[in-house]
Amino acid sequence: MKLYTFFRGSSPFRLRIALKLKGLAYEPAFVHLGKGEHRKPGFGAVNPQGLLPALVLDDGRVLTQSLAIIEYLDEKYPNPALLPKDALGRVRVRSLSLLVACEIHPLNNARTLAYLRKQLGLGEEQVNAWYRHWVADGLAKFEADLTRTPGTGKFCHGDTPSMADCCLVPQIINAQRFNCDLAAYPSAMRVFEACMALAAFDEAQPSKQPDAE
Amino acid sequence: MKLYTFFRGSSPFRLRIALKLKGLAYEPAFVHLGKGEHRKPGFGAVNPQGLLPALVLDDGRVLTQSLAIIEYLDEKYPNPALLPKDALGRVRVRSLSLLVACEIHPLNNARTLAYLRKQLGLGEEQVNAWYRHWVADGLAKFEADLTRTPGTGKFCHGDTPSMADCCLVPQIINAQRFNCDLAAYPSAMRVFEACMALAAFDEAQPSKQPDAE
Repeated sequence: MKLYTFFRGSSPFRLRIALKLKGLAYEPAFVHLGKGEHRKPGFGAVNPQGLLPALVLDDGRVLTQSLAIIEYLDEKYPNPALLPKDALGRVRVRSLSLLVACEIHPLNNARTLAYLRKQLGLGEEQVNAWYRHWVADGLAKFEADLTRTPGTGKFCHGDTPSMADCCLVPQIINAQRFNCDLAAYPSAMRVFEACMALAAFDEAQPSKQPDAE
Repeated sequence: MKLYTFFRGSSPFRLRIALKLKGLAYEPAFVHLGKGEHRKPGFGAVNPQGLLPALVLDDGRVLTQSLAIIEYLDEKYPNPALLPKDALGRVRVRSLSLLVACEIHPLNNARTLAYLRKQLGLGEEQVNAWYRHWVADGLAKFEADLTRTPGTGKFCHGDTPSMADCCLVPQIINAQRFNCDLAAYPSAMRVFEACMALAAFDEAQPSKQPDAE
């Protein structure tokens, strides 16, 4: 399998964690988002959506969107499972995953911040305030869910890592890079620390990628 | 089942379509996003994430996040299926669904536009330009996927409606409300028209809800 990735992107980071949790080897192909390499025809020929990550299977089929790919991997390589066996567990893990993927990350990804800077002319202070606003808004919701919905364990759901943890950890690491105050989310941070103690999460993090700057 | 909904919200609209496609009856509970009713303690007690939609099962369990709920419904009430039977079909339907749910909708939902107006002081022209920018960006990606990835049929994937159609239709209807030019997306619009010819999509649309204004 070939993984189109960028060390800093949250979405490829989610998928790197999932691949490592499942012990699946991949050949990395680096696409520098900062240099706009994902908008060049070469990558557009791989992924019509023009987004990272993309996972190319050995037969050449291209899979896109991190959560969709994680679900696929979980179906094809079920052990260890990244989604619970029970339907209510699955809906919760998917809901927590989507809370990060839909409510926080899209507002803070590179092209959104670029629009704020270039089209709206915002300064770094305003951009950082925007970033922190959506992290605080989203993580408050995440924390409320972790503390009030049944099922939270050592990890987001139960005592083994799931797709939700694959989503939470990149969001926290990005929030730390923007110096967000994370003291108000003790449950999320406890789960984050439990994840980072595992080799799969540690090895997948941005600073340990071959394309890290 | 009890559905917390708002006529205009894209996410509850997705779920209304899915419920109607499956012929599942629900009791609606109206939460007015424009009046901030989702931020009041009453709704917060239902959904810790404080977001629409929320679906309360007959045993009182609360399900959250539209795509997670649609997946749950598809597992519990498999006919008609909203996800394909093959893994490659599922990853594609999920990817197209996430393309709308992660790349377009979060940038254009009510609280994002409210931040642009209130915290950043943007005028309506700038807010509309922002809205149209992300619709154009996201629908161009969607159109490219529909035209270049195998599997597109009468609907987004194959000849029966799937979760991807449940996501596309609300996004198009919202784009029309903001007078977006949709001429550049003929495949997406062809699918949209095919969907709207079905009673499930038609009956689920904002203008036909009891809380419509």
